[in-house]
Amino acid sequence: MLFHVEMTVKLPPSMPAEQASEIKAKEKAYAQELQRQGKWRHLWRVAGSYANVSLFDVQDNAELQDLISNLPLFPYMEISVKPLCRHPSSIREDDS
Amino acid sequence: MLFHVEMTVKLPPSMPAEQASEIKAKEKAYAQELQRQGKWRHLWRVAGSYANVSLFDVQDNAELQDLISNLPLFPYMEISVKPLCRHPSSIREDDS
Amino acid sequence: MLFHVEMTVKLPPSMPAEQASEIKAKEKAYAQELQRQGKWRHLWRVAGSYANVSLFDVQDNAELQDLISNLPLFPYMEISVKPLCRHPSSIREDDS
Amino acid sequence: MLFHVEMTVKLPPSMPAEQASEIKAKEKAYAQELQRQGKWRHLWRVAGSYANVSLFDVQDNAELQDLISNLPLFPYMEISVKPLCRHPSSIREDDS
Amino acid sequence: MLFHVEMTVKLPPSMPAEQASEIKAKEKAYAQELQRQGKWRHLWRVAGSYANVSLFDVQDNAELQDLISNLPLFPYMEISVKPLCRHPSSIREDDS
Amino acid sequence: MLFHVEMTVKLPPSMPAEQASEIKAKEKAYAQELQRQGKWRHLWRVAGSYANVSLFDVQDNAELQDLISNLPLFPYMEISVKPLCRHPSSIREDDS
Amino acid sequence: MLFHVEMTVKLPPSMPAEQASEIKAKEKAYAQELQRQGKWRHLWRVAGSYANVSLFDVQDNAELQDLISNLPLFPYMEISVKPLCRHPSSIREDDS
Amino acid sequence: MLFHVEMTVKLPPSMPAEQASEIKAKEKAYAQELQRQGKWRHLWRVAGSYANVSLFDVQDNAELQDLISNLPLFPYMEISVKPLCRHPSSIREDDS
Amino acid sequence: MLFHVEMTVKLPPSMPAEQASEIKAKEKAYAQELQRQGKWRHLWRVAGSYANVSLFDVQDNAELQDLISNLPLFPYMEISVKPLCRHPSSIREDDS
Amino acid sequence: MLFHVEMTVKLPPSMPAEQASEIKAKEKAYAQELQRQGKWRHLWRVAGSYANVSLFDVQDNAELQDLISNLPLFPYMEISVKPLCRHPSSIREDDS
Repeated sequence: MLFHVEMTVKLPPSMPAEQASEIKAKEKAYAQELQRQGKWRHLWRVAGSYANVSLFDVQDNAELQDLISNLPLFPYMEISVKPLCRHPSSIREDDS
Repeated sequence: MLFHVEMTVKLPPSMPAEQASEIKAKEKAYAQELQRQGKWRHLWRVAGSYANVSLFDVQDNAELQDLISNLPLFPYMEISVKPLCRHPSSIREDDS
Repeated sequence: MLFHVEMTVKLPPSMPAEQASEIKAKEKAYAQELQRQGKWRHLWRVAGSYANVSLFDVQDNAELQDLISNLPLFPYMEISVKPLCRHPSSIREDDS
Repeated sequence: MLFHVEMTVKLPPSMPAEQASEIKAKEKAYAQELQRQGKWRHLWRVAGSYANVSLFDVQDNAELQDLISNLPLFPYMEISVKPLCRHPSSIREDDS
Repeated sequence: MLFHVEMTVKLPPSMPAEQASEIKAKEKAYAQELQRQGKWRHLWRVAGSYANVSLFDVQDNAELQDLISNLPLFPYMEISVKPLCRHPSSIREDDS
Repeated sequence: MLFHVEMTVKLPPSMPAEQASEIKAKEKAYAQELQRQGKWRHLWRVAGSYANVSLFDVQDNAELQDLISNLPLFPYMEISVKPLCRHPSSIREDDS
Repeated sequence: MLFHVEMTVKLPPSMPAEQASEIKAKEKAYAQELQRQGKWRHLWRVAGSYANVSLFDVQDNAELQDLISNLPLFPYMEISVKPLCRHPSSIREDDS
Repeated sequence: MLFHVEMTVKLPPSMPAEQASEIKAKEKAYAQELQRQGKWRHLWRVAGSYANVSLFDVQDNAELQDLISNLPLFPYMEISVKPLCRHPSSIREDDS
Repeated sequence: MLFHVEMTVKLPPSMPAEQASEIKAKEKAYAQELQRQGKWRHLWRVAGSYANVSLFDVQDNAELQDLISNLPLFPYMEISVKPLCRHPSSIREDDS
Repeated sequence: MLFHVEMTVKLPPSMPAEQASEIKAKEKAYAQELQRQGKWRHLWRVAGSYANVSLFDVQDNAELQDLISNLPLFPYMEISVKPLCRHPSSIREDDS
């Protein structure tokens, strides 16, 4: 089941550089592990911003909540979620 | 080059049903043709709405404008566009 | 799987009273049938408005889209959707 | 009498982890006590967020204010309130 | 129990003047009857607008919905509702 | 002359509790003094919030500015002001 | 007593040109009469728009409501009002 | 003197196609004439929309108002204006 | 050439009182000097706020930027600017 | 390929003056280097603000992201991006 997720990172200017680097490294490892598991199906940068557009493929709402709330950057992001489903005009069987 | 496009359809209530059906049929054919050409890479319905989230893969901004402004439903949609690029944490070579 | 749905009805002032009555009657029958099936779990009026707050219990996003897009008032409503899941502080096993 | 309440938690990044844990534990105990009393009738997590949707069942506006303003997280939340009442299409006698 | 209600009138420009006059006359009679009953406790014009600020004194949310949804101008107004209660700094016993 | 004033308190989380208590005590004394003078005619709590709805009765705009800008909580509040006048449907001579 | 008033004209596209001309002529005459009386103290066009910024000098809120609600274009304008008073840094005695 | 102008075209769906074509042709001729005069310095399409971003080079605010309010599409556009000036980091002498 | 400028002051709560007083004194001196020069033509307080509405009379956009960016409170204000010109219904030759 | 970029600088008030100066100097050098390379085609100050309007001319979205995310002020700016293309009414061959 697909969800469209937009994340905008807002790190507080007072966060020490070392702490920021550590969180970002954990975020990257976590994001890549979820991609390998097929749960984070797409991950794009929005050009000109510190934001991404993502597609999650999960069992249900509870798994979505579990995956997102464990993002290392979760406390520092504005996140919006939209449930998706197959579009009647889509020609791809494997894209919903 | 990828663009994230959200489209929300707002047909005027006064449009005759026959005219609406005709425009929607043209829209569907057009959308499927662009998908077959690889230019309209993803097309998802936003659940609970008359809206979609799409990914376009185009040569440049001019082609994006050309494809979108020729949508049969173009005069009846609210459309927002975001340029996308590869995310540094993405593990997929073929997704940007 | 639960979804939180808010619906605000915006009938065009030009709609004849008879047509409005007919659509509302169909909407009521449809809403009551979905409640009997357990898919429309809660339905409340927002006091002082022509709007409701609803809880849907569906298999997946596709079923949510199917149920909502078939609402007789669908073309005349502003609808917003939020996916829900169990809250860690909830004491009810049967409410998510 | 039912009220629809949405709460979004915004803890300041500078709050020490121990203090945050303590407040959250108090919040959880308080929320569960109100649920046992039947005053906090529903409590759901909004998937992908640090927010909840709740239904309160209170005597009057004054009790609503009393219950909400005593939430341990009250100073750190954005809260919106909507009065609810029975929907004419609801089939449940016990849900308003 | 008090509710704060703001109403902004948006009559469609296409409404015939006679019909508008008739609705406004009914609205005035209805508003004055509710004031005499003590249910519509205050009614002020917002200077420079076709809007009012009102205080309703009702038994519960259901009565509020009943009174507001029967306003002759209801289909032509934007309405926002806020539940009120006694302020701890108020010196008036009879104002909540 | 009546003005409708909404005030939402936003105390910075870093303010020491003692300082907050002192400001609130001064605010309460000031609010009660203005009520006794008849200048702060109504004061209601918005249920579920740290906000109030108030009615001021002043000589002119300058007095309104004087009263509001001297509120002890003035630097910590979001305040919106609307001028009011008698509504043509009001039945009360003494309420404008 | 001064009020800052912004007016944006939104004539419905379906209004016949003759009717529009007639309303605009009445509006102009009315605006000039109020200026001659000293009640409409300033009237500026916002460059690049069909909007104005105005300063009204009135006895009280009731007179403001009377003057604005009688504007021939009143049903076709979005209007916002702000009460003004003397600024402590102003050097002009005659400008408040 | 430069002004940044954004224009979004909102033609009413009920406008006959012939009338729309005529207005658009006049708009094009007008826009090209102003470009030749050097007053409409830049004109870009916002990709994926029926909108443009423009730079006007005018004597003063009055000329800006004159040029914009005479656009054939003026009654059918949402227009926003920002005054521009030389940026201290600009390396171009001829671009402000 | 006239510009309409609205300024809302947002001093950070952490600013020491002495520093705030010093900046405000400089702002007052600066504002009065510009008024004496005729460049800051009007300055009004918005009643019930820490905000002003001002009219600047400048040679061009560059001078406007110069005057505003040198305000001592500039880093602590939200500022919005609108270019003004003579309104066709204005009866004053000396007010644009 | 052209992109329209608006940047608004929001330096935290707590940033030491020396650090701010250093970042601004780096930003200026970076902006001028990109202008010399032809990638930052236009750079204007929005009069009365700490903001700019810019035109970037880049190979693709990825280069846009690269240039913007390396701005020394990037962590302290609100940035919005719009893809541009040739307008059908433009008379300039060299402006898209």
